[in-house]
Amino acid sequence: MRIGIIGSGSIGLLFAACLSKNHRIHLYCRRTEQLHQLQQGILLNGKPVAMDNIKTATTEDVPEKVDLWIVAVKQYHLLSLASFFGKIPADTPILFLQNGMGHLDYLGTLEHRNLFLGVVEHGALKKSDREVLHTGAGQTRIALFGGREETFVNIHRLIHTPDFPFILEKDYRGMLVGKLVANAIINPLTAIFQVKNGELLQNPYFFRLMKETFLEIQEVLQLDSPEQSFQNVIRICEKTKENESSMLRDLKRSKETEIEAIIGYLLKEAEKKGVETKLLRFLYIGIKGLENKR
Amino acid sequence: MRIGIIGSGSIGLLFAACLSKNHRIHLYCRRTEQLHQLQQGILLNGKPVAMDNIKTATTEDVPEKVDLWIVAVKQYHLLSLASFFGKIPADTPILFLQNGMGHLDYLGTLEHRNLFLGVVEHGALKKSDREVLHTGAGQTRIALFGGREETFVNIHRLIHTPDFPFILEKDYRGMLVGKLVANAIINPLTAIFQVKNGELLQNPYFFRLMKETFLEIQEVLQLDSPEQSFQNVIRICEKTKENESSMLRDLKRSKETEIEAIIGYLLKEAEKKGVETKLLRFLYIGIKGLENKR
Repeated sequence: MRIGIIGSGSIGLLFAACLSKNHRIHLYCRRTEQLHQLQQGILLNGKPVAMDNIKTATTEDVPEKVDLWIVAVKQYHLLSLASFFGKIPADTPILFLQNGMGHLDYLGTLEHRNLFLGVVEHGALKKSDREVLHTGAGQTRIALFGGREETFVNIHRLIHTPDFPFILEKDYRGMLVGKLVANAIINPLTAIFQVKNGELLQNPYFFRLMKETFLEIQEVLQLDSPEQSFQNVIRICEKTKENESSMLRDLKRSKETEIEAIIGYLLKEAEKKGVETKLLRFLYIGIKGLENKR
Repeated sequence: MRIGIIGSGSIGLLFAACLSKNHRIHLYCRRTEQLHQLQQGILLNGKPVAMDNIKTATTEDVPEKVDLWIVAVKQYHLLSLASFFGKIPADTPILFLQNGMGHLDYLGTLEHRNLFLGVVEHGALKKSDREVLHTGAGQTRIALFGGREETFVNIHRLIHTPDFPFILEKDYRGMLVGKLVANAIINPLTAIFQVKNGELLQNPYFFRLMKETFLEIQEVLQLDSPEQSFQNVIRICEKTKENESSMLRDLKRSKETEIEAIIGYLLKEAEKKGVETKLLRFLYIGIKGLENKR
């Protein structure tokens, strides 16, 4: 396939490097400086990636004609891509990989007919503008949000490989909620207390805060199987125990975090349902404070 | 007067240095290593203090006969002084300078008849075992907890000087509550977010958390003039804006914090009254987690 990847952060770089073995990749970034870096070639785990199948450009350029778009920018950058999306044919399928659920409303406003959602379970760490580490081999779960089932299944058949697997999911909401719950607990707690993911499990006090935060999320989302959902959070935490969460990394590098997409979404849901969420509000305001720390 | 000072932390050292101008001081510390340091002489703001009026010993030694005891150890060390207190005559007045209010029950168990409480509003920073900085000239508020009013007023007359002032307070509970509220807000928030006291006022997000924390404390304590009480917290925060709170400093030096005496006390009060305190519990568990951080 010809695959367009929008966004050259850790996920964009990882997908470009891994998918370029079997597909022709068009990789887009925002900044010209990064484009110059990318043109020197991408490094995956310190090794140069063959660039024969990878073309690079910025999102100011005209989008190439491709068979699939993969959107790997942070949720808060989606709006700035309006003009770029405007130039993409309405029938080209688009796969969105954002965290949180705040972007679902936005997807409804697009003219594009075939929309897929994805949840990335790979560990990826951007070392520089052209260098990415695949810190944890995982998978990408994908689900149909809107459009033809046949197109979706066909794309899956073409993109899935055992080395870089894509898993079909029936229910996009359930899939996103699972990731959202894990992100809403692991990200702010690790960022506020400045610990690796694993310390939330090892330190009995932080583990209590995980539970208390989960209980509040459960009040908001009314999950069908809360036990199973909390076990899933523990599993992710255990699997990524040596990692720093993206929110902790963002704060350390004075970057905007995804707090709005994650806890911000839960606070809006809570308000709709009239649920009081003192802890989630504390986490939200606390992370905002840290983003604005001198 | 002859004054015994128990505890050679920042407050004990500051009081020994400042009161030794007019009184004979017996200063007690816990550790033999610190005793050896103290015997080389105390430094106040980098300058040697005349040691003619200061004798040093450890709390393992027999207490001298003095006219007033000043207890300047952390609340959580009070219990370990039982044997030392046992050797102090029951009519010698004792002034307790601990933060929080958890020690009031303990005071009721002592055989001593003249008990005073104090709240220190000086800025003091211990640089080493024998060196203290007076970072903010303030005052010490004192109130009678039990015993003869005449003894209390007499001690005040002897100890107060314009250079190192002591202010008489009528109501020990009101005096302690004021400090407790300020400590309960400023200490955990600055410690968790690792900011100086002033940033709680300057960063609008942290300021919102100050307010939310205060509202929960108000639900527990049912203060008579909440507005005035919150203004008092702001005033203290402003006055100490360049300081790191003692809790932040304790965590940085991997020392036990006073969270138990401060938020622990409020949680117990909340439980007695059946008030739910999600934020205070979060702060309490969070600080405990940081104390136990790898």
